[in-house]
Amino acid sequence: MGMVYLTGAGPGDIELLTLKAYRVIQNADVIIYDRLANPKILEMAKDGCEFVYVGKEDGRHTLPQDEINEVIYKNSLQYQIVVRLKGGDPFVFGRGGEEGAYLHKRDVKFEVIPGITSAISAPAYAGIPVTHRGIAVSFRVVTGHETPNKENSQIPWENFKTDDTIVFLMGLHNLSKISKKLMEIGKPSDYPCAVISKGTTPDCSGWYFRRYC
Amino acid sequence: MGMVYLTGAGPGDIELLTLKAYRVIQNADVIIYDRLANPKILEMAKDGCEFVYVGKEDGRHTLPQDEINEVIYKNSLQYQIVVRLKGGDPFVFGRGGEEGAYLHKRDVKFEVIPGITSAISAPAYAGIPVTHRGIAVSFRVVTGHETPNKENSQIPWENFKTDDTIVFLMGLHNLSKISKKLMEIGKPSDYPCAVISKGTTPDCSGWYFRRYC
Repeated sequence: MGMVYLTGAGPGDIELLTLKAYRVIQNADVIIYDRLANPKILEMAKDGCEFVYVGKEDGRHTLPQDEINEVIYKNSLQYQIVVRLKGGDPFVFGRGGEEGAYLHKRDVKFEVIPGITSAISAPAYAGIPVTHRGIAVSFRVVTGHETPNKENSQIPWENFKTDDTIVFLMGLHNLSKISKKLMEIGKPSDYPCAVISKGTTPDCSGWYFRRYC
Repeated sequence: MGMVYLTGAGPGDIELLTLKAYRVIQNADVIIYDRLANPKILEMAKDGCEFVYVGKEDGRHTLPQDEINEVIYKNSLQYQIVVRLKGGDPFVFGRGGEEGAYLHKRDVKFEVIPGITSAISAPAYAGIPVTHRGIAVSFRVVTGHETPNKENSQIPWENFKTDDTIVFLMGLHNLSKISKKLMEIGKPSDYPCAVISKGTTPDCSGWYFRRYC
């Protein structure tokens, strides 16, 4: 039975891969991946490495999570070194926790390799520190996927009145709804904000509303 | 005039260094560092690289931030490749924002190289995902340095009633005060929590209060 590495691929800049991720990718017998900020990472694999794609494709949806869990498990029966590669960090909205729990249940050995999360690095590449003395003594990271008007929202919107930095990950699609919701709970319309797309890559785009420094 | 790299050294496991940090450390003419989770990183530097220590030493305090800014600036006048190395990520309580702002003011070119933050990776190595479907759809990272009873606290304690994951960084020293404060605002005494010291290193220690998965 093989060893599974739940591995963070980082935010896009291929050089933000960790040495550890680089090592296991080079040694992998199979790499199970979905949407990657930088698909060139796969070119680091050795000759003969198998690739299994479990992400979205034209018109097709991502495999349901329980099927992905099963794919990882089955590959661990067949290969020695199994890399489950995920954009960013496996534990920041990467569902790495679910995959780890499933592997644990099936008695498969696994290890988590954290990756640089876009939540911190995309703002950093745009010149924005998520913490800054006198301005933000904390930051939080929230999924931007959930529709803000969803009933029974798990997101504590009322709780966003304080002045810590709030990062909505994957929030472009809901941008206008998120902005509206933040103004509803009392954020002024000139509140400093930035929108970043494809952060840390040459295709990065975005804008600032206002800069502090 | 040289180029300054505000570089994250990661949380302790030397393999969690990024490829980019590894590259600039190998090419550095001078490395300005303070407390590092893993001082072995300095051994990666080329022969002849200068080292400047600006951190705490027996009984001595860290240099004030404005003196550190000046040290970085002066080194940028003397050396081509200046690496300012910081534990974790330069923008997560690393005061990288202040150093960047100062360098910008002095017309020194600089670049930020994000590092793996212990806020996410130390829990990950302990088997704890900071987000998990159905349990935590957001997480926040707060300085654990500030004394909870400080007057005019910048930390929004009342705001911690929701069930997102809260990570207090460098909070060991204030552990009992933080716990007491969290119970004061209404967290039950059996609220799931973990304490981690020296995360991602062989010297790691800690305990869980209760596990979900």
